[in-house]
Amino acid sequence: MYRLIIKNTILMLFFAQFSVGFASEGPRNVVLIIGDGMDDHQITIARNYLKGVTGRLTLDDMPIRSSVQVLTVDNTDPSRYLYVADSANSGTAMSTGVVTSRGRIATSARQDKDIPTIVELAQQAGFRTGIVTTATVTDATPATFAAHISMRFCENPQEMVSDRYDCSSDKKANGGPGSISEQLAVSKLNVLLGGGREHFAMNVEDGDDTVENLARKNGFMVVHTKQELVDSDPSKKLLGLFAENHLPTKMRGENGRVAEQPDPSFLNGIHWSLGEVELPEPMSCEDNPDYKSTPSIQLMTRKALENLSLDNDIGFFLMVESASIDKQSHLRNPCGSIGELDQLDKTLASVLAFADTHPHTLVLVTADHAQAAQLVPATSLFSGVGVPVYTPGRMVRIKMPDGGIMGVNYATNEVFAEEHTGGTVPLYANESGRGLVKTYMTQPEVFEVMRSFLGL
Amino acid sequence: MYRLIIKNTILMLFFAQFSVGFASEGPRNVVLIIGDGMDDHQITIARNYLKGVTGRLTLDDMPIRSSVQVLTVDNTDPSRYLYVADSANSGTAMSTGVVTSRGRIATSARQDKDIPTIVELAQQAGFRTGIVTTATVTDATPATFAAHISMRFCENPQEMVSDRYDCSSDKKANGGPGSISEQLAVSKLNVLLGGGREHFAMNVEDGDDTVENLARKNGFMVVHTKQELVDSDPSKKLLGLFAENHLPTKMRGENGRVAEQPDPSFLNGIHWSLGEVELPEPMSCEDNPDYKSTPSIQLMTRKALENLSLDNDIGFFLMVESASIDKQSHLRNPCGSIGELDQLDKTLASVLAFADTHPHTLVLVTADHAQAAQLVPATSLFSGVGVPVYTPGRMVRIKMPDGGIMGVNYATNEVFAEEHTGGTVPLYANESGRGLVKTYMTQPEVFEVMRSFLGL
Repeated sequence: MYRLIIKNTILMLFFAQFSVGFASEGPRNVVLIIGDGMDDHQITIARNYLKGVTGRLTLDDMPIRSSVQVLTVDNTDPSRYLYVADSANSGTAMSTGVVTSRGRIATSARQDKDIPTIVELAQQAGFRTGIVTTATVTDATPATFAAHISMRFCENPQEMVSDRYDCSSDKKANGGPGSISEQLAVSKLNVLLGGGREHFAMNVEDGDDTVENLARKNGFMVVHTKQELVDSDPSKKLLGLFAENHLPTKMRGENGRVAEQPDPSFLNGIHWSLGEVELPEPMSCEDNPDYKSTPSIQLMTRKALENLSLDNDIGFFLMVESASIDKQSHLRNPCGSIGELDQLDKTLASVLAFADTHPHTLVLVTADHAQAAQLVPATSLFSGVGVPVYTPGRMVRIKMPDGGIMGVNYATNEVFAEEHTGGTVPLYANESGRGLVKTYMTQPEVFEVMRSFLGL
Repeated sequence: MYRLIIKNTILMLFFAQFSVGFASEGPRNVVLIIGDGMDDHQITIARNYLKGVTGRLTLDDMPIRSSVQVLTVDNTDPSRYLYVADSANSGTAMSTGVVTSRGRIATSARQDKDIPTIVELAQQAGFRTGIVTTATVTDATPATFAAHISMRFCENPQEMVSDRYDCSSDKKANGGPGSISEQLAVSKLNVLLGGGREHFAMNVEDGDDTVENLARKNGFMVVHTKQELVDSDPSKKLLGLFAENHLPTKMRGENGRVAEQPDPSFLNGIHWSLGEVELPEPMSCEDNPDYKSTPSIQLMTRKALENLSLDNDIGFFLMVESASIDKQSHLRNPCGSIGELDQLDKTLASVLAFADTHPHTLVLVTADHAQAAQLVPATSLFSGVGVPVYTPGRMVRIKMPDGGIMGVNYATNEVFAEEHTGGTVPLYANESGRGLVKTYMTQPEVFEVMRSFLGL
């Protein structure tokens, strides 16, 4: 009886505190950080390299952790589920709460209806909105938050008229909203930072002016360099395009090396049980020389937060993407993925510091889908069996800062690029997510958490 | 200020309740359920098959979820970390709180010192103890809780004298404790259920009696069939050996099929960009005909709980392992792994029902290490690029109950069996774990959670 009373008192007080929070004055902010392809393997690989196996990422200190099921449907029969997503449909699930088919940007499977995004709902309610990415700002993940199009590769006016993809239903000439870059140029976003200058340099579909000038006419101040970003006026709408295409990654493999196939000896070529198979020579990760003048995700995010929070009584929604964890995994480059996960983790630390001084800031970190990279033994667990054992795929053996050798395997596609995989992805939240984030969720529920936190 | 007072009151009351809990009368129980190799990919694959992509496993409803870093050191230099574990060293980390090297059963790396296990500490404090597994009871995971040996394959008296493994330091003739089966036979365990009858049928190292008779002399009632298990007296020490080796799995691939290599056409054999490469024909999962009279993990666990809780005022520690999630993944058989994860999930439901009527029962579910299986697209995301794209490894395309086709890829080892992988593993807890289980932990901390819950 005594315990029951205590328990009820706790519950009462808990919800009292909760309501005080919701009823209190002051802005409400959501920062959603997406590590593209950042599954538990990618995180473990990065942790081992960056902090050592017993070290901790900033991610690891987040107080709330969930596992998120990624959902994808078939475009011809949306009642049918597929089991592996692309970034377009998984981004759409988070930005709109609606499960759609691969390649779609905030449009519904088969019916191709535009679906309102969290960015648009927030804008309607008076919140400011921003997007930061290391991909082109027109790439699938950022696009799903602020554009609507049936095909993710319809990124610019030229693609709309080329034959590479079917962009017809979204062409302005057919009454559509036009390419992704044109949609972003006329959007109500307050901040949009990333790569993709080439998609803004060409003329709009229906006129003689560039997409970039269209953005300027819509009130965007446009910057192209790190210094211009640093110097930018936080009270102005800001479009930052810091590379022609995706931003260069922070790290790369030694002399640009990526995963390689094991090398069978002549004898092994005659019979699988004979001779030897040499695994790729261990290599170091190194700084990517192309990265030098690229603004970090941390810097872009700091500038975005400054802009979005300046004299803002209502609050904001900001999506930050570390895009090349995925892109480097497609390319079988674990050093690239590690550096981009490092960038994400450092950005998270900045965002948490912002949240410390800005109450009612919900910070979520998640991935859109899982990826191919696997942490495997640097030499096989079966290396003592007396026959050569080795991966059928491609492998990197990384020289680790702690002196060890870590194996990373890529073996989902023999020819082109590695595949996405279909495992659940992690989701982390700060204390503002308490009560909203459950231990297991589907991806559309991530949208619901954000919508409900902002009261949309 | 008002909020601060409320917050402090909540904290005070929270810890007050906690201490009341610890001080109260009644037994304290821990049930640790280990899915061998049960990483997030395995769970997603099983969820999709068993419950549909939007369905929920019992696991998914657990209120507490953590991610656990698996730690392994090198036997020759224990200050050096490796990045991928085997079940022996990862089981030891959980059973003893000490990080050791691959192959070791509750012994320290290099120095080969015996390390007290949670089972032994619990026994010393008067708790009953039990182990349930679908492997041989002498297999690595169960052994790490109740035996000490430098080499996991020293499972029976014959191995101790054979030349296959170096078991010399543990031979009775050399003053050691003898093989794993002999150590289990003389153990203080109250319940030990699983496979491995063959390891108990032979004579002990130092006498003319079988290991099984050694167990009988130590007070074990020995049962060999499901019916004998059902009829067993819960007040007696119980050893159940239900198969010569590992227990048969519940499910298998259609007609015993496992993952297969894609099949290149003649033209593709000439050049990678030509012709076609056929992926394995989709197949169903089916009941394994060998399973029929095998006791389920659920039944074994129910009998173990009955035995351990009967007239017990102090409490118990029980480890339950679904071993063949891992073993079937080594064999590239996703249907096998799915069935064993199904068994684990149903067992969890039983254990949670037990915890409902037995307060102070901590239920933990985790994996010892990650495994090779990857959920991949049933047809490549790049299948439109105009050249054949396919996995370099082996693949199963499973016909799903919802009508879809799910792809599972195995590609960590070309020749022998698939490798373990090094990603973090999930850990779930019931409400009894609140305050003890953090969102990110290392594997030795799982031991600390159990030790602290039992007050050892």
